[in-house]
Amino acid sequence: MLVPAIISIIYQENDLWAFIISALITSSFGFILETATKPSEKMKEIQRKEGFLIAALSWFAASIFGAIPYLIYGVFQHPVDAWFESVAGFTTTGASVLTDIEALPHGMLFWRSYSQWLGGMGIIVLGIAILPRLAVGGMQLIGLEAPGPTTEKITPRIAETAKKLWGVYLLLSFVLILFLKFAGMPIFDSVLQSFSTMSTGGFSPKNLSIGSYNSSLIDVIITIFMFLAGMNFVLHYWLLRGDFKRTVRNSEFKYYFFLNLAIILLISFELWSTIYPNFFEALRYGSFQVISISTTTGYSTANFDLWPSFSKWFLLMLMFFGGCAGSTSGSIKIIRIMVLFKKGYQELHKIIHPRAVVPIRVNTKPINQDVVSSITSFFLIYLFIFLVSTLLVLAAEDIPILTAISACAASIGNIGPGLGQVGPIGNYADLSSFTKVVLSFLMIIGRLELFTILVIFTPAFWRR
Amino acid sequence: MLVPAIISIIYQENDLWAFIISALITSSFGFILETATKPSEKMKEIQRKEGFLIAALSWFAASIFGAIPYLIYGVFQHPVDAWFESVAGFTTTGASVLTDIEALPHGMLFWRSYSQWLGGMGIIVLGIAILPRLAVGGMQLIGLEAPGPTTEKITPRIAETAKKLWGVYLLLSFVLILFLKFAGMPIFDSVLQSFSTMSTGGFSPKNLSIGSYNSSLIDVIITIFMFLAGMNFVLHYWLLRGDFKRTVRNSEFKYYFFLNLAIILLISFELWSTIYPNFFEALRYGSFQVISISTTTGYSTANFDLWPSFSKWFLLMLMFFGGCAGSTSGSIKIIRIMVLFKKGYQELHKIIHPRAVVPIRVNTKPINQDVVSSITSFFLIYLFIFLVSTLLVLAAEDIPILTAISACAASIGNIGPGLGQVGPIGNYADLSSFTKVVLSFLMIIGRLELFTILVIFTPAFWRR
Repeated sequence: MLVPAIISIIYQENDLWAFIISALITSSFGFILETATKPSEKMKEIQRKEGFLIAALSWFAASIFGAIPYLIYGVFQHPVDAWFESVAGFTTTGASVLTDIEALPHGMLFWRSYSQWLGGMGIIVLGIAILPRLAVGGMQLIGLEAPGPTTEKITPRIAETAKKLWGVYLLLSFVLILFLKFAGMPIFDSVLQSFSTMSTGGFSPKNLSIGSYNSSLIDVIITIFMFLAGMNFVLHYWLLRGDFKRTVRNSEFKYYFFLNLAIILLISFELWSTIYPNFFEALRYGSFQVISISTTTGYSTANFDLWPSFSKWFLLMLMFFGGCAGSTSGSIKIIRIMVLFKKGYQELHKIIHPRAVVPIRVNTKPINQDVVSSITSFFLIYLFIFLVSTLLVLAAEDIPILTAISACAASIGNIGPGLGQVGPIGNYADLSSFTKVVLSFLMIIGRLELFTILVIFTPAFWRR
Repeated sequence: MLVPAIISIIYQENDLWAFIISALITSSFGFILETATKPSEKMKEIQRKEGFLIAALSWFAASIFGAIPYLIYGVFQHPVDAWFESVAGFTTTGASVLTDIEALPHGMLFWRSYSQWLGGMGIIVLGIAILPRLAVGGMQLIGLEAPGPTTEKITPRIAETAKKLWGVYLLLSFVLILFLKFAGMPIFDSVLQSFSTMSTGGFSPKNLSIGSYNSSLIDVIITIFMFLAGMNFVLHYWLLRGDFKRTVRNSEFKYYFFLNLAIILLISFELWSTIYPNFFEALRYGSFQVISISTTTGYSTANFDLWPSFSKWFLLMLMFFGGCAGSTSGSIKIIRIMVLFKKGYQELHKIIHPRAVVPIRVNTKPINQDVVSSITSFFLIYLFIFLVSTLLVLAAEDIPILTAISACAASIGNIGPGLGQVGPIGNYADLSSFTKVVLSFLMIIGRLELFTILVIFTPAFWRR
């Protein structure tokens, strides 16, 4: 919170005290917790169940304390609104309850994007170093690829992996700032858009998102960096060390690349024949929006809510894909989608040859049946939570079905904007507090790969 | 076809020749196939692959020949329309391309409902006696419960099981005709509505479906019989032999009963607070519509397209449930939904206790991991086909997203009406031939539990 305070000082705006008071409140809480609880030597070893609790509580705590600056400065009157905006930040969702973003001082704008960037740092470590060890929803598959020695204990390994991947994240963010600056974006905006791009968060200091810059060069740069942010960061690490083969041979990357390419072409062709007379214009807006939704960033350069039904429905389905595991993107993720596809095809083969055993392969290696089972369960629970939450939202709000579906899909998938009232030119402000709380929970549940949160609510978790 | 011909004679209408000519064409084809192909003794044994082909081809053949009376009489000018109506009959879907049903002669109306009743007979045998032996999509679970000796060879066993279950089907149909007649429905309508109720087909000789009789007694009778038609017919067999315990203890039946009860209450409460001032009126229309959709019948007594978003979305989700396996209902079916729920919960338990093995149980017996895997694959493929077909329909038609979604869900789930243009007071007439063919395929694929059709399109199927 002292970082946005510096921004306030630079721009000499009146939001400085909001950050300083918030920092004092937050650090006081931290100090009390630190001194009041003295763990014994034995308790210093982190157990499995504690791992879940730490992961879950850190996002709740970050979003609650992160809401304080908004409340103190008076960006929002209602605490639920402040918490919603903060959750949308730290979970890198990018859904907003702000009706006029550009009216905020620079410090507050910085805090929004900075919270996404911090959230993204957390997600990389959670996704690559922690969740694979907790064997959550098939995340084991990613752990195998992570850099660093494999014989050491969990704690030093996490620290080492984290440092390497954060280095990559920092480097890419820095490069993107330079690119955006040279493409003509103001430096303040470049920094904020870089934060929200690399974290696939999607907040913008502009009301019209990336569309407000109206520059095809900026569109292309951001499209490329959203794509990079949706890649497994372990692959970036290997790429930077000159190992290109590892990326090109990676099954998930191949799926990620070709799936997005195919969908971009399909949607661009429809847009070409209906909205944009020029194919390259259709491709520019089509590819930006496909990559923005599929990487769960949520930026927009066009009001896709007005696109024809085929493209809109495709974008809504894309909300369930996500980028690669080990990226900052949310949603189900390509590796799971890939395994689900392969599982479907495997079954057809099995029906004809009931006794033949054909394992599902990822990166040419056969994967364990337990991992496949874990991934299908993840998918089922994802779908179940999504469907139940749409019912809750429709019971509370008088809105069209598609608006509710898209709001829930965009929240659990950490995308941000949906369709209709919550679409690219709308926001979540007019929804009831009940719905905002439901959607905030969806963002956190989705961000923490479901299980991390859900296990805490099972009786078995609390039994000794 | 000679049965509706008798109806034509009774009512002295001009559709008699359409049935006689169709019967001659169909029997000529049968005669040619019968004499032209002389199987050797060895080939008389039906193999696994032939089982799939026979099941798949019988529904295609029935629907193609079943379309001939419509074409000859001139109900439809376009062959695709006639085939669509015929497919909607034999697959017990009940989707219609007729704009004025009541304008048809009695023989044609009879043929529509009769084709559903025949389709229902086929489904019972397919679902209980044939598919379980082919181990399709977890259908093994039902086979165990079927009546008849278990040591004999496949062919005599199928014949015996079929006879017993057809007896139940005939009996229930007959009882329903009597009930409807005594409730004041004309005898002709009673027979037709009984045919379309017991087969969960949903065709009606009236433009406004069951709503046109405007009788709460008829509504209640049909609600109860739709529910009975959505039960596993094996349970009816045991019930008729006085074995009530087997039904009450049946896991799938319990899920079927309580799930429908819960949804009826939820929807009725919303209808009570929004559309109907009287709770019992809300309950009457709510329960009828929930049971009609969840058993995949597709009758309507109200224009649910005008209901509030919560109820409409719930009905749309219900389209993916279906009744019990071994009933005449379509869609995914309760036993699979039940196993999918249990699988989701099992995974949460597994994350906390990675080494504990807690099997999924159905009827208190643990079920094989292969069956669970087969059921999840079924679900994945069902969803995949549904999503791809919505894209095809939206690419071809200029219709709202929800209309396309509901049309595809109602077709693959063998329900019939959807929302919007294809809703309870609409029909499928205005869609393009391309879309009608897509939806007809969906009906057949859904009716034959996906795999039966899909395996035929895999290269492995045709390899020796």
